[in-house]
Amino acid sequence: MTASPVRPAGAEVSRTVFGRAFAIIGAFADAPDEGLTLTGIAQRSGLPMTTTHRLVGRLEDERLLERDGEGRYRVGLRLWELGLLASRPQGLRRAALPVLEDLYEVAHQNVQLMVLDGVEAVVVERLSARDAIRLAGRTGGRLPIHATSGGVVLLAHAGEDLVERVLQEPLQRFTASTISSEAQLRATLALARRQGWITLRDHITPGSVSVAAPVRDARARVVAAVSVVSDASDGDHLVPAVRTAALAIGRTLR
Amino acid sequence: MTASPVRPAGAEVSRTVFGRAFAIIGAFADAPDEGLTLTGIAQRSGLPMTTTHRLVGRLEDERLLERDGEGRYRVGLRLWELGLLASRPQGLRRAALPVLEDLYEVAHQNVQLMVLDGVEAVVVERLSARDAIRLAGRTGGRLPIHATSGGVVLLAHAGEDLVERVLQEPLQRFTASTISSEAQLRATLALARRQGWITLRDHITPGSVSVAAPVRDARARVVAAVSVVSDASDGDHLVPAVRTAALAIGRTLR
Repeated sequence: MTASPVRPAGAEVSRTVFGRAFAIIGAFADAPDEGLTLTGIAQRSGLPMTTTHRLVGRLEDERLLERDGEGRYRVGLRLWELGLLASRPQGLRRAALPVLEDLYEVAHQNVQLMVLDGVEAVVVERLSARDAIRLAGRTGGRLPIHATSGGVVLLAHAGEDLVERVLQEPLQRFTASTISSEAQLRATLALARRQGWITLRDHITPGSVSVAAPVRDARARVVAAVSVVSDASDGDHLVPAVRTAALAIGRTLR
Repeated sequence: MTASPVRPAGAEVSRTVFGRAFAIIGAFADAPDEGLTLTGIAQRSGLPMTTTHRLVGRLEDERLLERDGEGRYRVGLRLWELGLLASRPQGLRRAALPVLEDLYEVAHQNVQLMVLDGVEAVVVERLSARDAIRLAGRTGGRLPIHATSGGVVLLAHAGEDLVERVLQEPLQRFTASTISSEAQLRATLALARRQGWITLRDHITPGSVSVAAPVRDARARVVAAVSVVSDASDGDHLVPAVRTAALAIGRTLR
């Protein structure tokens, strides 16, 4: 029972020119390294070929897409530059990176920083050791909130409204261990609040154990979650390190 | 004789809706942490208030801008996510980061990775020690190619066409040491090619010394430059480390 945990951002087709243009850029979410042809873009974005052709031309004019010598397109350097102007992920990354690097040095596994966006968890930073267990998603990718320890921590502190919204859709299962019932989700959220951290096993990646703790800003609001995902048989020995890192990042935010 | 070395990407006003929309996003290039008001955006983007109002609304609909409770706008998380789909900076960063971290460990100063875009050098990654000399620009920012060691290395291997284009505009001076004549530029480019690295002193930041070396891909094309910028009295002792790092990154690209 597996499914792709990574949903491309904005692959849906919207009415406006902007919406369609960003559906085109979203089509590159899982594009191969060699880029996409016009036909490939049209297929992935679900737009007619004529619309795709016209909008790709405009995006290329603005250098948001780049075309190589073989007519393949890639997302342009300029979009990357503009994206780095986003203050929420960049401010957090700046504050968190030294601490994440220390945590990485100690754990030598996958270290992640996540924030909430809608009903999903966005990976703002990930440091992975060469020999660490391979995870779904990537930096800048989205993960389902109920299936990742960082997501559960964020949801635990996000209020009942968001819990209701998450429960409106069936809880997708990636492995036999994924949280898949309301009762299980609510019990796990309560535990995360009570303990101040959570440990999940095998929730997306079989053989993984993941420990997450909340990062609080100056007003004690939970703004991010730090997690370590490893292939250790249990995550208990990582709990103090993850909690310390979360507190340290919170302190630098003040 | 100082001037801001950081040019906002796309702050110019263009004809198309897209061009204007991205002029608005470009207006956030040097925005304060607390974001911009509608008036602030109109002023910085040079667009009329009515146009700004309409386009900001559309950008907010697409979650490319986010508005806080006080009516201030910031660049949205979604634009950051889309920007991370850019394969050129992200592929390079992935390959280079472990090596840059090693170089940072040794030098404990500013370590930078730059690529060429048009006639400018774009900072793809920068790691800065807390007590290192403070530099102009930021990750994702642009620096003038003739005034930075990384830029000079990129230009040295980019061919005569680009040298001509750079020389079409007066070479902007940031300090008394900035390269400011064609003869000086050509001599420095020749030296960078002959040695395989370059050392520049005080070119943008007074008191700084900067050493850069080229990163070559599998086809031996120069695709990036690695540099260390420090406040040491001379950069000679850093040359072997910078060259080794550049070679190591090139090797991981193959």
